[in-house]
Amino acid sequence: MKIYFAGAIRGGREDSAFYLELVEQLRPYGTVLTEHIADEQLTSLGESMDDRAIHDRDLAWLKEADCLVAEVTTPSLGVGFEIGKATEWDLRVLCLFRPNTGRALSALIAGSDRLTVREYQDASQVKKIFDEFFT
Amino acid sequence: MKIYFAGAIRGGREDSAFYLELVEQLRPYGTVLTEHIADEQLTSLGESMDDRAIHDRDLAWLKEADCLVAEVTTPSLGVGFEIGKATEWDLRVLCLFRPNTGRALSALIAGSDRLTVREYQDASQVKKIFDEFFT
Repeated sequence: MKIYFAGAIRGGREDSAFYLELVEQLRPYGTVLTEHIADEQLTSLGESMDDRAIHDRDLAWLKEADCLVAEVTTPSLGVGFEIGKATEWDLRVLCLFRPNTGRALSALIAGSDRLTVREYQDASQVKKIFDEFFT
Repeated sequence: MKIYFAGAIRGGREDSAFYLELVEQLRPYGTVLTEHIADEQLTSLGESMDDRAIHDRDLAWLKEADCLVAEVTTPSLGVGFEIGKATEWDLRVLCLFRPNTGRALSALIAGSDRLTVREYQDASQVKKIFDEFFT
């Protein structure tokens, strides 16, 4: 199982500790292609690579993946873009959202029947969500 | 010409005055299907409609549109999702970004060759960008 994990980078890194925890908890289920999203050294300036190279690499990984797991609490153009592509390409998509931040999830995500949205409060609740999604 | 205008709603309404100005300036070029994005009464709680109904209506409008014009300065899952779909559906896509806010644009948007990104500082510079894009 190849898993594409998505989280905000230039949209803001305030959830990076969650991304790290989610990537750790995804490991038993398959290979996470995008571990760098969880790198706590990565700032909202993003990677030092050329944008075109990042775009082409990320879309190649997404095409290769069996599923997309996205943390969608911090609004992000890139994460939305990836969800838009993944739902067109018929990947399985799991979106994880923390409502206790006071944010409201985009209606385009919350209202889609081509993906699964699951809410959680903290990382201890994620194993159950992953177990259900992957089995 | 049917124009789908995209801007952040639940991602944050701090740019709503720009959305209003852009929608006004788009009118000479065609019909703007999504004028409500620019409604200054609309808050980050979003519309009062059911999420599924919003999703289905917005995707129907996007399918019907000839082009997508997106203000991408405020990060937004919905706007990213729409750009992801539109680039799959071969719509023409124009993304408008204000670098003077200190934000960095997502590499997935900035690095795509299937859309046009144009930077601006204020609404007075937009007419020239629209003239070039629509002619």
